Formats: sequence, C-alpha cells, structure tokens
Amino acid sequence: MSDPARRPHVVVLGGGFGGLWATRALAGAPVRVTLIDRANHHVFQPLLYQVAAASLSGPDIAAPLRHIVRRQDNVTVLLEEVQGIDVAARSVRTGAGEYEYDWLIVATGSTHAYFGDDEWAAHAPALKTLDDALAIRRRILSAFEYAEREPDPLRRAEWLSFVIIGAGPTGVELAGTLAEMAQHTLAREFRHADPRRATIHLVEAGPRVLGAMPERLSAAARRKLESMGVRVHVDSAVTEVDQTGVRMGDERIAARTSLWAAGVAASPLSTGLPAERDRAGRVKVAPDLSLPGHPEVFVVGDLAHVEQGGRLVPGMASAAKQMGSHAARIIKDRLAGGSSRAFRYRDYGSLASVSRAFAVVDLRGVEMSGFTGWLFWLFAHILFLIGFRNRFAVMWNWAWSYLTWQRNARIIVGRDREDREAAE
Amino acid sequence: MSDPARRPHVVVLGGGFGGLWATRALAGAPVRVTLIDRANHHVFQPLLYQVAAASLSGPDIAAPLRHIVRRQDNVTVLLEEVQGIDVAARSVRTGAGEYEYDWLIVATGSTHAYFGDDEWAAHAPALKTLDDALAIRRRILSAFEYAEREPDPLRRAEWLSFVIIGAGPTGVELAGTLAEMAQHTLAREFRHADPRRATIHLVEAGPRVLGAMPERLSAAARRKLESMGVRVHVDSAVTEVDQTGVRMGDERIAARTSLWAAGVAASPLSTGLPAERDRAGRVKVAPDLSLPGHPEVFVVGDLAHVEQGGRLVPGMASAAKQMGSHAARIIKDRLAGGSSRAFRYRDYGSLASVSRAFAVVDLRGVEMSGFTGWLFWLFAHILFLIGFRNRFAVMWNWAWSYLTWQRNARIIVGRDREDREAAE
Repeated sequence: MSDPARRPHVVVLGGGFGGLWATRALAGAPVRVTLIDRANHHVFQPLLYQVAAASLSGPDIAAPLRHIVRRQDNVTVLLEEVQGIDVAARSVRTGAGEYEYDWLIVATGSTHAYFGDDEWAAHAPALKTLDDALAIRRRILSAFEYAEREPDPLRRAEWLSFVIIGAGPTGVELAGTLAEMAQHTLAREFRHADPRRATIHLVEAGPRVLGAMPERLSAAARRKLESMGVRVHVDSAVTEVDQTGVRMGDERIAARTSLWAAGVAASPLSTGLPAERDRAGRVKVAPDLSLPGHPEVFVVGDLAHVEQGGRLVPGMASAAKQMGSHAARIIKDRLAGGSSRAFRYRDYGSLASVSRAFAVVDLRGVEMSGFTGWLFWLFAHILFLIGFRNRFAVMWNWAWSYLTWQRNARIIVGRDREDREAAE
Repeated sequence: MSDPARRPHVVVLGGGFGGLWATRALAGAPVRVTLIDRANHHVFQPLLYQVAAASLSGPDIAAPLRHIVRRQDNVTVLLEEVQGIDVAARSVRTGAGEYEYDWLIVATGSTHAYFGDDEWAAHAPALKTLDDALAIRRRILSAFEYAEREPDPLRRAEWLSFVIIGAGPTGVELAGTLAEMAQHTLAREFRHADPRRATIHLVEAGPRVLGAMPERLSAAARRKLESMGVRVHVDSAVTEVDQTGVRMGDERIAARTSLWAAGVAASPLSTGLPAERDRAGRVKVAPDLSLPGHPEVFVVGDLAHVEQGGRLVPGMASAAKQMGSHAARIIKDRLAGGSSRAFRYRDYGSLASVSRAFAVVDLRGVEMSGFTGWLFWLFAHILFLIGFRNRFAVMWNWAWSYLTWQRNARIIVGRDREDREAAE
C-alpha cells in the first residue's frame, strides 16, 4: 500500500509484557513502529526471583528485543533511555534525540516504592530488572561467605539472617527458595558457618501472606513456608531498615541481608503525562486505555490504573499483555475508520511457587495447592517463556536442580563489598 | 591419625587451574588446606571468549569453588582478596586477617600487560575474569546498538569497526566469533546499521597469527579468518589506543571498540616474593617449582617461570594443572619423609577454534585443521569442563547455536555508557 516511510508512526515505550505485546499485535499493520527500551532485552519477570536465587542464569529468562521482533519488518528497536514525553508536541525525548509520534503507547511499568524512605533502597534492594537480580544474587551468596569467615558467633548469626519485606508472590517465592538454598544447596559446603542454621524472615504489613489470593491458599502457603523454617511475621509494618537489620515497631530483626518485595510505584516517566493519578502514581486511563483528552496516547501495563467490577486490574504479566494487545487493536481499528472499544480484562487467576514441588494456584473458581499446583505452575511458566531455546534451557536447569538440589548459577560477579560500602 | 586441627597447614592462593588442581591433589593428605580466592568460582578460562561473545552464559563455564571441593573435608574455602605474603613470617595477609602456613602454593596467575601504557586498559579491555567477559560482551553488543541509531555514516562505520589486539589463541578466537556474530547472528535484526558491514581487524606485532603453533596451522587459521572477512594485520605493533581507534606506526584504524588479547604479566601479588623474575614478572622457580631458598613455598601456573628443553613452559591450562598437582605431590612426599623431585612438563600440544566447524590443533606430531580439528577441539573442551551439569549445558548451547546461528546470551547487563564515560 502506502510508502512505508510515510505510514503513521507508533512509538512504544518499554519492552516489557505490555509494550512487547502491543508491538507484536501491530505486525502487518500499516504503521511504522519504534520500540524504545533502556535494556536490550525482554525479561520474563515472573522468574526473576530464580535468577536472584542462583537457580537460573540471566540469559535463561531474557531474550534480545531485536531478536524477538526480527521478522516484523515494520518495527525498529532502539536501545535508549526515554527522558520525557511532550504530549502537546506529540514527541518523545531520548538521549538519541526527539521522536515524533502519531500514536504513543506508554508501557514503562513500575518501580519499587519505599514509601518515602528512599535510603532503605540501599539496604533492602528490590527485584525489578536483571541487574537487580544479579545484585541480589551477589548479596545473598556473599552473606554466606561473610558468615563463613566471621569468628564472632553473634555476628555470624547476623550474616545468616535474611529478611524479606513483603509477602506477595515475589516475597513468598524468594523466602521459599532462600530456605531451600540454605537447607539443601549450600548445606554441606561450609566449614565454620552452617547454612542450615540460617533464618529466613518474611515480613508482611497485611494480615496474611499472598493477600490477593483466597484465604485457604494463603494459609496453605504459610504452613508450607513455616514447615521449611521460614519465620512469617504478619501485621508487621516495617518502620526502619538499615545495614544491620529491620525494625517493625517494637520488634527488631538483626539481619545483614534484607530484600524488598513490598510496594510498587509507577515509573517516574509517567509524571510527564497530563492525567489524574492514583496514590501509587498509576495513570487513570479512559475505558479504552487512552489518556483522557489524548486519544492517540495509550497507557498500558503496571503503569495504568484500570478498574473493573470495582477492583483494580492487578499489575501482572497477563494483564499487561492484554492491555498491550488492546491498545494495538484500537490503533488498527481507528486507522481502518473504526472506533474505540473499552478494555475488558480477562482474569485467568494467579499463582505462586512456594518451594520445589509446592505451589498455590487460584484460577478464579479452581484452587490448587501443593504438588498439583506446582505441576500447573511449571506448565504455565514453561509455556509462557519467550523463545523455544530458553524454554528448553529452563526445563533442563529445573530438572537438574530438582534431582540434585543444586543450582547452576551460584556465581558471584561484581563486588558485593562495593555495593554495601556504597550503602553506608 | 593426628588431631586434624594440628595437621600442617597448606595455604593455596588462587582457585584457577593451578590452585584447584593442587587442592584436589591434596585430598586425603594429612594436612589442612585453606584455598583463598577473591572470586567464589573457578572459571574454565579457555571458553571465556564465548561468554564475551554471548554464546555462553557466565554460569555455563564456572562452578563455585566450595561446590567443587565440597567432599574434600580437609579443605576450607575462603572468598577473600590476598593483600600480601610474608615468607619470613610464613604468613599471608588478607582482608579477613593473617593466615599462617606451613606450606604455601602461590597460583594467582597472570593479568594483562599493556606494556607500560596502562591508560590503554580503559579503551581496550582484556579478558581474564568473568567480570571482564561480561564487560566485553556489553561493549560489543552495545557497539551495534550505537551504530543502529547513529545517523552519520562515517561514525556509524566506526561503531561497526572492531580491533582485536594480539593474535594468540584468544585473539584469533575472539576475531572469528565476532565475525560470525556480525555476519550471521545479528545479520537481519537491525534496520539502519547492517551488521554484515562490520569490519573485524586482528592486529599482531609478530609475523603471524598463532605464533606458537606450527607455520602450516598459522597459515590455515589466517586463511580461514580472511575468508570470514577478518582483516589480519601482522608485523603491526600497536603504538596508540584511544576511544576512537588504534594506531600502529603510520597506520590507523578507526574503531569504537578495541579488545586486548596481547601481553600478559604476572599477578601483582608476586612482587612480594623474594625471587628473581623474568621480564613479564614471572617468578623463576627451582626445578621442583619451589621458591629458591624457601622449600615450603611453591609457585605454580602462569606465575611460574619454568624452562624445559630451553623453552618456557607456556601459560596454558594443562601446564598449570600439572604444576599444581606436582606441588601437592611434593608436599605429600616430604611429609612422608621423601625428597623433592623436579617438575617435568608433559606437552600435549595446543589448539584454537577459529570458527564454528574450524579449529587448528597441534598435538606435537599430529596436526589437524578444519572440521577434524574442530571435532577434536569440541571433544577436548567438553571433556575438560568441570562438573557434569556445565558440560551438558554447554553442549546443548553449542548444538543449538550450531543449528540456528543464534546465541543464547545476547543480554546486556550493566551500563556500557558508564564504562565508556569512565574511560574518558
């Protein structure tokens, strides 16, 4: 049809689930697409905790964005940091210059919120990117090394004490895998510090773990965690985090390693958008996911505040994919002379893996826990992993770990001491 | 037999091939062994270039030291930087305090030598550790990304130009794999910069590539490299390296990415040893590999200057392993009342992979090149990889790459721009 260079220009910000699914849904459409991300890869975020826990290597759960969309010839991928959005001028400012758009899809996701206490970030790092996962892996593995050479028993116990703040799926998964690492993987490899004496604390401000799940599953997950030695603290809001521990009101846990799996906040880029926002900074979008007053701008994924049936659509991969595809579909429809339709979220449920061979699954009607849940979890994760090769590599790594309790990625790169000193 | 805590204490510095093979050879001996390394892992260095070239992930070629020696109960592994050696006091100074020894095995290896021009290091990084490999991977992959968004054709060509300095095995292997990456792996994934137009320069001060190999194999490797588009410059000593290129006398190559695969120098730790040294800083050891005047101190691996038949024993994995085992054997013999024996190097030859399906192999009598050589290379590398799991993972990755030309680890972690800005 038309000259490709004169086709409408769709700029997609972010190569996570929202942005990538939007880009893919524009395959074959009469548009030029520019997909901008500051990383060169898409990350399968639901398995990021396994990279942090040394079970998988980074490349196992990531694929280069350019590789994923290589056959889609209306897409240009740009590795660049977005600095600002000017909706009046319809342009996006990046380190490589300005990009004008006819349509914009903002899918820059969320970042971690420390509820105003940003200095906590240095002591309790959060898990959002591959870089984060590698830094957390380094921190966890190094803690056991520090314990090994600490002669003072009290300080050694501090190095063998871990606090995970936030008991949503990521917090629960981290606590479970850390307990297994200490009890099994590392068990016999130290001479002075016994990893089996490590204590894993899971701290949650709300009344139960996995608060978004049905109570029965919450209870099952908690029982399983406790059976593995994890100490679960509910109704415990964290009031202080420093390099030697975490305080929750009157109670204090001495621990040299804290990880943050609590609040999320909208990516800072969204502050440039002229729109109403919720408390977490998410943009309140129109029913079709567009920015109110700007039908050419869509906000999708974790960044979008969308309510359905009185409930917020959750910040999950499946919701982000659905929103990305929806925005793309509307652009195609409108280019074809059609009109917008409201987004309808199809809720397939949620799931969390507590340990090897134990997961909880809520399919909105069907609930599973234990081994059955874990088989379902396994199947779902393998199925949704991007790229055949990664799927196979992950399967192999899991099978190996399952049989041997070993983890393939117990490699420290970078210097943990520098991270910790920078935090002081 | 005796109280384990009162057994003679052997301190091993370095968990590379020399130190690890020494440690393993002390299994069952009536000694306590402390193995100190600043990394938590042993790296299979011969495949480090494949991590840099995004074919393998770090954990594929590395295994935690503690895991390797977990069943050897006379060994304690310590993750620590060694700060100095005091041979008079028989002690080693580390960040975690002093360690006294009865026997010392120094296996801290080599580092890269920039022939006095240390500022070159920032512009032409070298490949020695996993951290180096990840930084080089980031640099290579980022160069193609910068090229993609560079509008000026001259500057774009600079981003697509790569110089590898030094045509020993590492330089040849890097040049070959980089050419393949540009010609095949990345070929169709960019819209503005065509990776197939990348130029790979291999610069060597000596008269031929793979100078330590027989001339016939050198020539075969060179022909193969040139058939892949690599520009080979021999008799070309580098006189200047900066962020925009490399100068060799009157000639200059404009290139935004330079990699160093040339000189090596002994690890700086060796300067604390009271001994004669060669020009590269290697310690001239006694025939039994001990430090002259200090029969309780051994120097093994790349750090040791050992001549045999008038030739220097090369800085290769197999030589380091043999030296490590030899030092351990002498300690055991002497504890049993025996005497020292001279080290005899068994030269099994050397090999280098030029491209997929093409390697050159010199078995000191039998020479192979091309596909046969590559099959031998493949077999030897799989065989010698530490740990069954890694072997399988590497095999799988190779098979996959071989069939698809894809690479599994094309993931940029960290920020290349920060590396480059720090260099300016």
